[in-house]
Amino acid sequence: MGPTYSHFYDEPLNLVRGEGVWLFDEQGNRYLDCYNNVVSVGHCNPNVVKALSTQAALLNTHTRYIHENVVRLAEKLSSKFPEKLDTCIFVCTGTEANDLALQMARVVTGNYGAIVTDAAYHGNSVAIGAMDPDRKVEVGTEWLETFEPPNTYRGPHGDGEDLAEFYANEAGKAIDRLSAKDIDLAAAMLDLSFDSNGILIPPEGYLEKVTDKVRAAGGIVIVDEVQAGYCRMGDYMWGFERYNVDPDIVTLGKPMGAGHPVAAVVTTREIASKFADIDSYFNTFGGNPVSAAVAEAVLDEIDAKKLLESATEVGAHLAAGLEKIKQRFRFVGNVQGSGLFWGIDLVKDPSTKEPMSRQELRHITTLLKNEGVLMGSTGRYGNCLKIRPPLVFSKENADQALAAIEKTFEKMES
Amino acid sequence: MGPTYSHFYDEPLNLVRGEGVWLFDEQGNRYLDCYNNVVSVGHCNPNVVKALSTQAALLNTHTRYIHENVVRLAEKLSSKFPEKLDTCIFVCTGTEANDLALQMARVVTGNYGAIVTDAAYHGNSVAIGAMDPDRKVEVGTEWLETFEPPNTYRGPHGDGEDLAEFYANEAGKAIDRLSAKDIDLAAAMLDLSFDSNGILIPPEGYLEKVTDKVRAAGGIVIVDEVQAGYCRMGDYMWGFERYNVDPDIVTLGKPMGAGHPVAAVVTTREIASKFADIDSYFNTFGGNPVSAAVAEAVLDEIDAKKLLESATEVGAHLAAGLEKIKQRFRFVGNVQGSGLFWGIDLVKDPSTKEPMSRQELRHITTLLKNEGVLMGSTGRYGNCLKIRPPLVFSKENADQALAAIEKTFEKMES
Repeated sequence: MGPTYSHFYDEPLNLVRGEGVWLFDEQGNRYLDCYNNVVSVGHCNPNVVKALSTQAALLNTHTRYIHENVVRLAEKLSSKFPEKLDTCIFVCTGTEANDLALQMARVVTGNYGAIVTDAAYHGNSVAIGAMDPDRKVEVGTEWLETFEPPNTYRGPHGDGEDLAEFYANEAGKAIDRLSAKDIDLAAAMLDLSFDSNGILIPPEGYLEKVTDKVRAAGGIVIVDEVQAGYCRMGDYMWGFERYNVDPDIVTLGKPMGAGHPVAAVVTTREIASKFADIDSYFNTFGGNPVSAAVAEAVLDEIDAKKLLESATEVGAHLAAGLEKIKQRFRFVGNVQGSGLFWGIDLVKDPSTKEPMSRQELRHITTLLKNEGVLMGSTGRYGNCLKIRPPLVFSKENADQALAAIEKTFEKMES
Repeated sequence: MGPTYSHFYDEPLNLVRGEGVWLFDEQGNRYLDCYNNVVSVGHCNPNVVKALSTQAALLNTHTRYIHENVVRLAEKLSSKFPEKLDTCIFVCTGTEANDLALQMARVVTGNYGAIVTDAAYHGNSVAIGAMDPDRKVEVGTEWLETFEPPNTYRGPHGDGEDLAEFYANEAGKAIDRLSAKDIDLAAAMLDLSFDSNGILIPPEGYLEKVTDKVRAAGGIVIVDEVQAGYCRMGDYMWGFERYNVDPDIVTLGKPMGAGHPVAAVVTTREIASKFADIDSYFNTFGGNPVSAAVAEAVLDEIDAKKLLESATEVGAHLAAGLEKIKQRFRFVGNVQGSGLFWGIDLVKDPSTKEPMSRQELRHITTLLKNEGVLMGSTGRYGNCLKIRPPLVFSKENADQALAAIEKTFEKMES
């Protein structure tokens, strides 16, 4: 296997079984999964596994033939969106969804440029990987400009400034930098959880201002819901609903298939038609009867188990616990997020806000693992402890996670 | 669903069940599948479905934790390759594999350019879709040059010329056109079945000459085995073995997971290490325990059922039947291919070689469907009848397919 593979822990976990919020290693140790948003309806959800197994034994082929599964999925999925977002194109991964969204934006606007927040992660293809500052794409990226994410704790901003205005202007400047290169804007691609930026809740009014600037420049608004979507942040099924953002294209990924590679672009009939008039697209595996059955089972689980309501309630419980932890430990610079998606910005010193090192975070996540709790890290400096459990997370699970964080932070203090 | 979806037939097939080489529609009609290479070990292969279902019920997570399935798959897969191609990176689709291969080629060579045959299809991302002349990518493609495929029936070439030399020079000219733009060559990407070019067997010595030119220009050789690989063309597991091509990177896709989205990049330790030293790559679903179990089951089926030997034998039987058909019908310009992958180049007039129209091909594939046989079309002009059945195709299946072609061609004559 290629050396690009890297593990979360120095002694990597050898997991052999999953069930709900639990993962089990080969020694039979049980871990509370506070990291995997992919299996949002729970590890090995029986209804999803049944849908997968039943359809795989019956038929699995491409969408050049018709099949009721993909039609039913498209209907069920689009019913979760505002009426105008009524058209679905199915692909296999979030990368493919974002890559296709960029292609569609370019075709329908006739423009070439794109803007994303600095340190955003939207995928790993040639085009989408160029957005990732960890990647080494140096040539052929003139079409891309990045802008400062709306980090109200850590970001650069003068005291007393209108932060919504301040950060929206950063997006405006990125559009201006494209213009200065004679490149017109095709799209802004926005992860409304700002995951790779440390999980941020932007200031009120910010996203309206950003989308206004994007549209004024002739671009369209692509909302990447791979992270924020599927009830992740509580209160709403999708991140864009929280902010009154009116997206032109929405992309879906990870949680859509509970581990099965299925993803989607959801857009307006107008944009899809304009794209199809000029260009073409076919995806061999996208929307096949098995993938469609799995994605439908995931939506059904969310409805049947009331996972949106649960993410909201358990999220509020988790938020209250995290707030207490913030008050107690001075190296907790900030707690940011919503629902079941949180970043704890850890600092060496709260007055300077100097980020803890990646090594310290790796030490913390290892201590947490030893407490039987799996978490990750994120943020531009890798200093944010990342909590992103499956949606089937209970208040009891949250209490266990909070207790493990407290215990670990106590060790860090001593 | 988006209007980019298009069906093979004006009255699209509504398939509900698959088994081996057979597909069944909702009326219970049975069709002999002579088109789907994805399910190469047969529709709903019981051992593959069992591997999928069993692992999906046990654990499905990403490669940040270790799991024996992906390690076992990497070992089993690399054992099918020459010793130096010992390193695997798993992704979800052929597009992702080719896109990653291009990224790796650029990083390890430090160059930016690529060449592919004209009308080749290697995938649908921003970068890889730019290679597809059916797509509308007009900006940002200065790094790409295409060259005339080695079509010894239809291609431009003077009589008596050394065709290997002639067509290899076409590749050389593409490299020169990049140089003229001050772009150095990172890679040639080659589908050794030349599927989208009508399925071609290039003249002897051609590919050695092409790869020599690529390496002399500082590029590496990427062989896209999404079509030619997995025993497709008989005699060899991989297309490159047929031609003594010594690839630096091999990409795998469609048949690897029998319908499950799993794909791979196979390369040398040296290239993988050089890439990892400079760049990074992570794929959420790639190589997860379920995908790995499925891909391993496919390899096991190929070995257990001796599908390479079968593709070779049944392929020879099919070839003999197609040759008879060529002799009988004057609108059969050429029969090209090998093993279980054939293109029948259909012409309005054999003296002018004017291709039959796409409409005529659609009529032919519809007549074949009415005979209970599913085939497709391919080639730069869409005039090649495409035969590409699952590897579990028997001589009896081949006889049925040949009889249906004969009957259909008789109707075309009258």
